[in-house]
Amino acid sequence: MPSRIAFHGGSLGAWQVLSTAVVRGEALAPVSHIEVQPGAAPPTGFVEPRWTLTGLISNLRYATRRELTDLRQRQEGLGRPAARQAALIPIKKSAAWWGLAQDERRAIFEEQSAHTAIGLNYLPAIARQLYHCRDLGEPFDFITWFEYAPNEAPAFEELVGRLRETAEWAYVEREIDLRLVRL
Amino acid sequence: MPSRIAFHGGSLGAWQVLSTAVVRGEALAPVSHIEVQPGAAPPTGFVEPRWTLTGLISNLRYATRRELTDLRQRQEGLGRPAARQAALIPIKKSAAWWGLAQDERRAIFEEQSAHTAIGLNYLPAIARQLYHCRDLGEPFDFITWFEYAPNEAPAFEELVGRLRETAEWAYVEREIDLRLVRL
Repeated sequence: MPSRIAFHGGSLGAWQVLSTAVVRGEALAPVSHIEVQPGAAPPTGFVEPRWTLTGLISNLRYATRRELTDLRQRQEGLGRPAARQAALIPIKKSAAWWGLAQDERRAIFEEQSAHTAIGLNYLPAIARQLYHCRDLGEPFDFITWFEYAPNEAPAFEELVGRLRETAEWAYVEREIDLRLVRL
Repeated sequence: MPSRIAFHGGSLGAWQVLSTAVVRGEALAPVSHIEVQPGAAPPTGFVEPRWTLTGLISNLRYATRRELTDLRQRQEGLGRPAARQAALIPIKKSAAWWGLAQDERRAIFEEQSAHTAIGLNYLPAIARQLYHCRDLGEPFDFITWFEYAPNEAPAFEELVGRLRETAEWAYVEREIDLRLVRL
């Protein structure tokens, strides 16, 4: 069974918020810290978070076996001591995206937008994890999470800049970009 | 946002259970009636259901645009007055299935097993709806629901028989088959 993870935004937490950008759509209430917790348990160490985003690691939706093999050969896990910076980028796609057939979404995602291919260029420096939340009734469809060493921050800017120029991103209707540093 | 639906199994409900077969894996507690309710609200008209299965209509995971067009041209909706019989078949697939890449699952689902193509042969007589529940932490990955007129029952037997012979079904590790009649 897929396991859930909760991102609590508030005034306490293991990650300090360096910046919050509303890339598209409605803002999230500003917070100074993020606490990441596995499961659906109530947050610890808080009086009350201002908001909680919940997601889970689900099966892959677009990657082919060849892409998956490439990713696994090159990627490193979360929690590397040197990867003190992170980005928490929740994303919601439009009804037009979700109404497309699987082959249409795949073609936009990879053949037109090279989503996986772009990300591969930044491995292993930029570690990433995708959490699904659309089917949970959450305000976003995905929570994307990236971890990298401070000297890789320019590479991360390049990565998100390239993704935001793709055909796929025309279907993103809400996106918030929080940059974090581990305390 | 995808909307949820709940199938309550108990001693009251709009559908009477005609038969319950444990096709594979662990049984469900036997019930005499099923009540189908939209949303996550508690059931009405029951003291307490013996079990509740919850799912939601999500985006399509395998169908191409061409398959989707064929389906939409030929299928009819749920709730047709003549379609007094139904089948409620919750299914759980194995970890091996979920560990496959998208192209591998698609190839098994359609190129090897002709899942969509088989179902098309029984449209519009056998109306169908798929509800997703794996990401909800439910005991099954899918709840499949079929509605048909009593004289189409033999055709429905043929349909489920053909699907259970496919390569895709080797990945099904739990399946319960309840046949119902509308009261």
